[in-house]
Amino acid sequence: MATDTVTLCWLDATSQRPDAAAGAAARHRQNQLTKPAGSLGELETLAVRLATLQGREQPQIERVNMTVFAADHGVARHAVSAFPQAVTGEMLRNFSRGGAAINVLAGELAAELEVIDLGVVNDPGALPGVQSARLGAGTADWTQEPALTPAQCQNALNIGRASADRAVQRGAQLYIGGEMGIGNTTTAAALACAVLNRPAADLAGPGTGVSPSGVRHKCAIIEAGLQRHRTLLDDPLQVLRGLGGFEIAALAGAYGRCAALGLPVLIDGFISSVAALIACRLQPAVSDWLLFSHRSAEPGHGVILDALDARPLLDLGLRLGEGSGAAVAVPLLRLACALHNGMATFAEAGVSDSEQG
Amino acid sequence: MATDTVTLCWLDATSQRPDAAAGAAARHRQNQLTKPAGSLGELETLAVRLATLQGREQPQIERVNMTVFAADHGVARHAVSAFPQAVTGEMLRNFSRGGAAINVLAGELAAELEVIDLGVVNDPGALPGVQSARLGAGTADWTQEPALTPAQCQNALNIGRASADRAVQRGAQLYIGGEMGIGNTTTAAALACAVLNRPAADLAGPGTGVSPSGVRHKCAIIEAGLQRHRTLLDDPLQVLRGLGGFEIAALAGAYGRCAALGLPVLIDGFISSVAALIACRLQPAVSDWLLFSHRSAEPGHGVILDALDARPLLDLGLRLGEGSGAAVAVPLLRLACALHNGMATFAEAGVSDSEQG
Repeated sequence: MATDTVTLCWLDATSQRPDAAAGAAARHRQNQLTKPAGSLGELETLAVRLATLQGREQPQIERVNMTVFAADHGVARHAVSAFPQAVTGEMLRNFSRGGAAINVLAGELAAELEVIDLGVVNDPGALPGVQSARLGAGTADWTQEPALTPAQCQNALNIGRASADRAVQRGAQLYIGGEMGIGNTTTAAALACAVLNRPAADLAGPGTGVSPSGVRHKCAIIEAGLQRHRTLLDDPLQVLRGLGGFEIAALAGAYGRCAALGLPVLIDGFISSVAALIACRLQPAVSDWLLFSHRSAEPGHGVILDALDARPLLDLGLRLGEGSGAAVAVPLLRLACALHNGMATFAEAGVSDSEQG
Repeated sequence: MATDTVTLCWLDATSQRPDAAAGAAARHRQNQLTKPAGSLGELETLAVRLATLQGREQPQIERVNMTVFAADHGVARHAVSAFPQAVTGEMLRNFSRGGAAINVLAGELAAELEVIDLGVVNDPGALPGVQSARLGAGTADWTQEPALTPAQCQNALNIGRASADRAVQRGAQLYIGGEMGIGNTTTAAALACAVLNRPAADLAGPGTGVSPSGVRHKCAIIEAGLQRHRTLLDDPLQVLRGLGGFEIAALAGAYGRCAALGLPVLIDGFISSVAALIACRLQPAVSDWLLFSHRSAEPGHGVILDALDARPLLDLGLRLGEGSGAAVAVPLLRLACALHNGMATFAEAGVSDSEQG
């Protein structure tokens, strides 16, 4: 295990510190703009937060990176999803052809989109626009054995890390991670139960659309997995190895690296939030770099958001994944910056800001 | 009053009927897209709703019209706002120079922006980009007398109507109405109290930022106005004449005309919602054409949204007006349409949609 210890030490790398002075300058600017103080609500908070993260009074979110990690889960053999496992690989082809939600959103937002195959059950071969970084034909079934080998876990984290490095090299001002993997709400729920010490019933939900009896079945599978891995539950890295999946480990690695590089992250929904939870347990200062886009329809999301002290921007009943909910929130960040940077001040406009009441 | 009866009869014009067949086709399309059914939540509902309103399976929200109506309120003499009354006219100049929030938002969204002076206290004279349609130097103080004369009310409604006509002529696919007027949360709260038969305390709030004692003062002013106009309270048009203001009447006229022309409307915040309430009381079928953008920080907004059975898209603590909250929600409508129109179907993508669970 010495190898792991060495190569994973970047996970403990110090996160960048947000720039409080830039934040104070941005707050000062906000209070001079021609509007009642505070009247742009969360958009003001967002502009000031982005200023602290980007280290400048006038932040910008023009260049957005999206990386979607796809992988299969051994636990899917227990029929925990409303869809057959083959859909993960089929969706890789759909990403390649540009037909999925995240393709449409990336196009509309003029965002950079990367898709990475970390290991779907049937190797799709070379697909245009899809990077192959296969770590296996899906993870092992975590009701029976650890989902990932130590090497797989390390590689998945490093693949996520490399995607953050590439985003920074391309000049991205925001990182969005997405995921695709049949069965991954079950794995994500199990991870959250392990990290937060909660029963399966608090985190298991319908996912892609299983019935109430299907949710009860998911709970039983999760409880079996937690029992199988009960000796690991006090170490977030061991929990990640025990339960997986490839794509969740990659997201956690990407988020950790974004924090180390000072690149703001916009978190998507249930699964991305669980990856964020793991990243924050590995390195608490990562949380400074995370913005939360939406509250998912998946009922367990609220538990994870509470644990992360997160207040998401949107609540639209989304539960698709792929990074789609984060993408939908990007225009709010852009408009918050545009208002912050583009509105006249009271002095510039000759508008009275003295209050009489 | 015979003149009024004749010229206002367009308010009773039949609203267009949404196209249920286009909605059914859009719902069918949604269910074939490569995602779990329902996983795009409110964005699916929105795409289908827009399909029914635009009468086509694949709706579009590219061309957006924004019209901001500015006017002063006689009731502002009672110090009901945190800002002096001169700010309304100063903000007209700010709109003219492009420095206000709605200017920035219109630019970012590539929306058409009209600004109309319906009567601020100090005539600003000709301003580039501002249409002068002055009905007086503000409304009369409705604690003492009717805010509008019958002719002013009729003219304000007709000016709103004409803005909807222009929007349709320009090919707009969405109408947003905005307002600016120091004191207009007080007038709007009074209107809502009158129409909904609620006490002032249920509708009065801090507006641009008055203190709790200022809110109590607003309540007293509103109760005085309701008492003064108590004989009119069963007729929404008489209530509008009694309380004003010019900009709220114009918004109500615009919304009514949009419904008659079949142009979807995206409602902004507290004041716009009160105008929508008046429009719906004048012609209930107007409500079919109204989409609600956000839940305002103004506490009374919830009462009005409930009365309109409205579920707004955003809840970001906005309370600026000018149409700004509606503008901020425009990207959600556009992304909902883009996803609806651009995603591959299961058949096109060769993705399994048979459910196993």
